[in-house]
Amino acid sequence: MRVAIDIMGGDKAPKEIVLGGLQAAKRFAGDQLIFIGQKPALAAIGQLPDNISLVEAKDVMAMDESVTNIMRKKESSIWIATKMVKEGQADAVVSAGSTAAQMAAATLQFGRIKGISRPAIGTIFPTLQGGKVLLDIGANADCEPEMLRQFALMGNVYAQLLLGIASPRIALLSNGTESHKGNKLTLAAYQLIEQTNLNFIGNKEGRDLLSGEYDVIVCDGFSGNIALKSTEGCFSALMTMLKGSLTKNVSRKIGAALIMPAFKELKQMVDYEEYGGAPLLGVRGVSIVCHGASSAKAINNAVAVAIDCLKNDFVSHLTTAVADEKEQ
Amino acid sequence: MRVAIDIMGGDKAPKEIVLGGLQAAKRFAGDQLIFIGQKPALAAIGQLPDNISLVEAKDVMAMDESVTNIMRKKESSIWIATKMVKEGQADAVVSAGSTAAQMAAATLQFGRIKGISRPAIGTIFPTLQGGKVLLDIGANADCEPEMLRQFALMGNVYAQLLLGIASPRIALLSNGTESHKGNKLTLAAYQLIEQTNLNFIGNKEGRDLLSGEYDVIVCDGFSGNIALKSTEGCFSALMTMLKGSLTKNVSRKIGAALIMPAFKELKQMVDYEEYGGAPLLGVRGVSIVCHGASSAKAINNAVAVAIDCLKNDFVSHLTTAVADEKEQ
Repeated sequence: MRVAIDIMGGDKAPKEIVLGGLQAAKRFAGDQLIFIGQKPALAAIGQLPDNISLVEAKDVMAMDESVTNIMRKKESSIWIATKMVKEGQADAVVSAGSTAAQMAAATLQFGRIKGISRPAIGTIFPTLQGGKVLLDIGANADCEPEMLRQFALMGNVYAQLLLGIASPRIALLSNGTESHKGNKLTLAAYQLIEQTNLNFIGNKEGRDLLSGEYDVIVCDGFSGNIALKSTEGCFSALMTMLKGSLTKNVSRKIGAALIMPAFKELKQMVDYEEYGGAPLLGVRGVSIVCHGASSAKAINNAVAVAIDCLKNDFVSHLTTAVADEKEQ
Repeated sequence: MRVAIDIMGGDKAPKEIVLGGLQAAKRFAGDQLIFIGQKPALAAIGQLPDNISLVEAKDVMAMDESVTNIMRKKESSIWIATKMVKEGQADAVVSAGSTAAQMAAATLQFGRIKGISRPAIGTIFPTLQGGKVLLDIGANADCEPEMLRQFALMGNVYAQLLLGIASPRIALLSNGTESHKGNKLTLAAYQLIEQTNLNFIGNKEGRDLLSGEYDVIVCDGFSGNIALKSTEGCFSALMTMLKGSLTKNVSRKIGAALIMPAFKELKQMVDYEEYGGAPLLGVRGVSIVCHGASSAKAINNAVAVAIDCLKNDFVSHLTTAVADEKEQ
């Protein structure tokens, strides 16, 4: 497999991205990696293993840059990485850069899977019962009910192929568990998802997110973003509070030292870097979206996700699942 | 002041509600409380202090009951409590029952404040920098941009009068901090709120919720519900994980015992029961909404909020603020 890594994308780019790529090159010695970046970044890398090659990009898409610029930035690292896959010089893209730009590049170059109105971004959401699929987490701030039905179909394939769950439990994120709870969008989507062959278990609410009594949870990109970031924010705020509180006196300091291994375990449980990244859903190619704050570990794991998607023929399965559901 | 308490509403009703009312009667010895409930619940109370009186309700609105039933349940405890305020036999309502029913009873009997399209439910959201106002948290699953502008106006008065903040920082909950981030609703609401005289500080995202770098945060009721419950769920999931992790071996158990006071402090910081309840915003009367899981402590504190609202002439200030903003 040949994985194109955009080394310019992410808060810690290019250093951590390069580091993660180097780790992945060692881990996947039989696969090829291509680093795409600007000249100074490429020059700083030093000695390369045999399975890494370099490609220069003259430009870069900034994190907060308007996505409409992508069409004028065909020399940007994310555009080139995506183009290499389209033209058969690579098999998958990995990036921690602007998600909107990554999605635009993939949609414009790979095209959409037939039957998918708008691609979505899924993520592996850490819960008390392991990682679950949450989508959409930000690609589509405004959704139609039919889009949520498509997200459910795509999340189902994701959970089957990448998490190995035979019949994933599909839930709808709402403001109450009863079927009559919701806004106009979720009430209509509920009806549509109920008519599919999916293992639909109805509504789940914000407080169910971390309990993990589901395998896939579907929502519009605005709500998904709120849910994901509220959870992230809660975790870091609680750690801040606890740290402040634990250093107030000597006995607490001793106690804190004794429970440090427990904290580390906890941190690992909710660490998105363990999951690396998630494929863009609904495009005809593999493009792995990483968290903007990704460090080397996340990039290394994202390469693993890319290879997993390719080995499992993820895009073909997605295409077939969407077509099959349409025929019913 | 005379506060009417619906002792039938809430997961722990009537026992904890009655207990909280009894505590409040002692705390506010110069004020009057009226317990409204069904005969068996009233009969079980036992000896009453002088400043509590009882009123029988033949019916009750169940937690999951359709709100449209309220018109056929004029003997329900929440309807009677609200009616007593409307007819001058009480000054404020406190309930931990169905929020939808409480809101319907208040809207139908008190009426809306002029210039308010739909009443909202605010809550005091615990943050690293103390309690902040979050609204709407579930009254209006689908909102128009103008409603979010009204929520901002009401949240502003709330923070001024009940939190004592002279010029509250008003934020809009969105999927990114930049002004171009949002869904159709928040993008339009951003423009409207920017045109008011409020101290508008722009968008905040999910991960900013607990940092508390704002005083009031405004959103539609669906998103507010997701944000609030995701945070609640995160907190309890982390506590579950930590507890499991802390009892794994002896040194961790000793450590856990030493840091227990720190955990208790933390629990208190994020304990909604400290805040008791929040007034329904936009109706011409005081009706305090409590969490469904409220125990005695929350009810006791909710009575304090009711008295605070009455002493500060909350409804009049809200009415004036909305009218003033309209004239500009």
